[in-house]
Amino acid sequence: MRPFNPALSKTISPPVMEARRWLSETILPREYPLLNLSQAAPVDPPHPALRAALAKAVLEEDAAHLYGPVMGLAALRTEVSDKWSQLYGGTITPEDVCITSGCNQAFCAALQVLAGAGDNVLIPLPYYFNHQMWLTMAGIEPRYIAATEGLLPDIERARALIDDKTRAIVLVTPNNPTGVEYPRSLITAFRDLARAHGLALIIDETYRDFHSRPGAPHHLFQDADWRDTVVHLYSFSKVFRLTGHRIGALIAAPDIMIEVEKFLDTTTICANQTGQRAALYGLQHLEDWVAGEREEILRRRKAIETAFADLPGWRLLGSGAYFAYLEHSFAQSSAELAPRLLRERGVLVLPGTMFGPSREAGGSGMAEQTLRIAFANADIFGIAELARRLSSVTAS
Amino acid sequence: MRPFNPALSKTISPPVMEARRWLSETILPREYPLLNLSQAAPVDPPHPALRAALAKAVLEEDAAHLYGPVMGLAALRTEVSDKWSQLYGGTITPEDVCITSGCNQAFCAALQVLAGAGDNVLIPLPYYFNHQMWLTMAGIEPRYIAATEGLLPDIERARALIDDKTRAIVLVTPNNPTGVEYPRSLITAFRDLARAHGLALIIDETYRDFHSRPGAPHHLFQDADWRDTVVHLYSFSKVFRLTGHRIGALIAAPDIMIEVEKFLDTTTICANQTGQRAALYGLQHLEDWVAGEREEILRRRKAIETAFADLPGWRLLGSGAYFAYLEHSFAQSSAELAPRLLRERGVLVLPGTMFGPSREAGGSGMAEQTLRIAFANADIFGIAELARRLSSVTAS
Repeated sequence: MRPFNPALSKTISPPVMEARRWLSETILPREYPLLNLSQAAPVDPPHPALRAALAKAVLEEDAAHLYGPVMGLAALRTEVSDKWSQLYGGTITPEDVCITSGCNQAFCAALQVLAGAGDNVLIPLPYYFNHQMWLTMAGIEPRYIAATEGLLPDIERARALIDDKTRAIVLVTPNNPTGVEYPRSLITAFRDLARAHGLALIIDETYRDFHSRPGAPHHLFQDADWRDTVVHLYSFSKVFRLTGHRIGALIAAPDIMIEVEKFLDTTTICANQTGQRAALYGLQHLEDWVAGEREEILRRRKAIETAFADLPGWRLLGSGAYFAYLEHSFAQSSAELAPRLLRERGVLVLPGTMFGPSREAGGSGMAEQTLRIAFANADIFGIAELARRLSSVTAS
Repeated sequence: MRPFNPALSKTISPPVMEARRWLSETILPREYPLLNLSQAAPVDPPHPALRAALAKAVLEEDAAHLYGPVMGLAALRTEVSDKWSQLYGGTITPEDVCITSGCNQAFCAALQVLAGAGDNVLIPLPYYFNHQMWLTMAGIEPRYIAATEGLLPDIERARALIDDKTRAIVLVTPNNPTGVEYPRSLITAFRDLARAHGLALIIDETYRDFHSRPGAPHHLFQDADWRDTVVHLYSFSKVFRLTGHRIGALIAAPDIMIEVEKFLDTTTICANQTGQRAALYGLQHLEDWVAGEREEILRRRKAIETAFADLPGWRLLGSGAYFAYLEHSFAQSSAELAPRLLRERGVLVLPGTMFGPSREAGGSGMAEQTLRIAFANADIFGIAELARRLSSVTAS
């Protein structure tokens, strides 16, 4: 038996699992206990009231154990449409919403509908690696939108990449891996660009709830015609600390939804019923708690901006939500530097080479020169310690 | 925005959702309350002890809410490898096992690794519709293995379908939709056929635990070289009544697993953590309860065989696990007959046209002439009532 599907062989291995392997293979220096800033995920469990409500559902609600509708629990779709309509100041109906097995599945579903093998899709650099992986395994060509200074996607570069096989433009804001929040005006400009070419604008807002600006992060849903262009992706994982439950959402026009339903039914039948109940509880009861979570993340962001404002050999290129994106000044590639930081300083972070093409593959060199710090899991003392350790690293 | 991915447009809409729509649009006759035999799923919740254990995990185990390994909980992979090694009399290690978000995802993962766009894969007729849907949306040509009398896949017909673009043969036993259990010798013969041509043999055993024969349902894992050919798929949904939790398993060689990990990471990151704990509890504690469940299903199977042994106008083509496959004698296609049975007799079952190509699309006519009865959800009185209602149906 062999050969395997060449599209899958071309796909890279999961970066987070690679980082876990470094961890299992490395003996840390005694004076540097592990500072794990590799994963974009809460490490604490969800709110006790959510846990109690979920335990009650497990014990008392039979439906929590049985198949539900492919597109998600009606109550959750309605709650999302109500809350989103209010936040964004637009009109989103329950029929525009479906619930997915995490936000990655929402991305896969949207792409499977909007683009086929041989098409191309524009994604910003640095990219979220699972986006790049899905495009590669689906036979869709990813075209990279280079970043301007400030790590915003360059709209003129994007325009130049569009041809008659282009099907969609992907934005991620606040961005993973850079943390950067895209300005509303830039998001609108990308929507106009997509619309002018008959493309979808796919906007992944997994980290929306940690945005530094209050109110709507963009105005896309205020446009009555949003359904002709906009596809929104969301995750319940970060905001309610539900990463283990695998619940996300996708918002798009009903004609897209008809196709999305085929994909969800075939790949997972429905999102799991307990996780959907947890997400619903969160939306209905944890607004104030989330506001406090956001404040804490914003405090940590300030701490990292302060710590790296003036750190010799290091430059903070972007920060926001869970992430800071750091430029180092070593000759060594980030691919070697990252495991070295673990070995020598007990710091686990992901190298830029996981988020963009290497120089060898046509990259600009940014991948080799950068590191992603998922700082949200360190308190302000941990962040100060990170800066101390990084400043003590010497050329290899 | 448009056009959509043509491969997805070619994919049919989810049959189970279509049946749900019939139900919502039909006013049932007062004298015939609904007899819903459409879904291959338990309608009762899981064992109370499992619910209690899961509620405890939700309250007390932080890890039940957080990301876990892409390939599944180590304890669950080990439990599966131990139990399966014992049942099948072979050697399966934890590294041969991964946990998926339901058995559908296990199928998608296996196919994504083993076949690419332009390849072809052999599936038996009638087929499980989600298999057909995934192949279509992935651009893989499904080639249909015609059934012999007795609804077994015809190995000589299969052999004749193989060419240099064939990548795998799929078997489903006990079969969905027919219920038929494939004899061990036939499964071995298909393995030999696959091996001789360097193909994978993908064997979906979702309904294994309701097999009428005790002991190993096949001898594939007793072959020390099974990894060169065999890929096994499993579901925890039916055996422990966990359909809402979305947990399945895939067993294959480690070199396949390296590729499967990319697919799982990209599409869902990991199977949800609560469902994995429920499955683990079931394997560790519910063996006796499952034995009782199996006995009850076998009693119902006997009831359906008795009820349809001699029913004018109807012929039982196959039965087993959750299913009976019925031939009707009307001139009307099953596609019209099924919604008519709901309207006129309150019986909801799925038409054969959902499980195979129509005459128009080159089918033999079997699709039009058959119905799938998911009898497991009716007790023996419900089964007798079904036979009464069907025998009273007249030509349209």
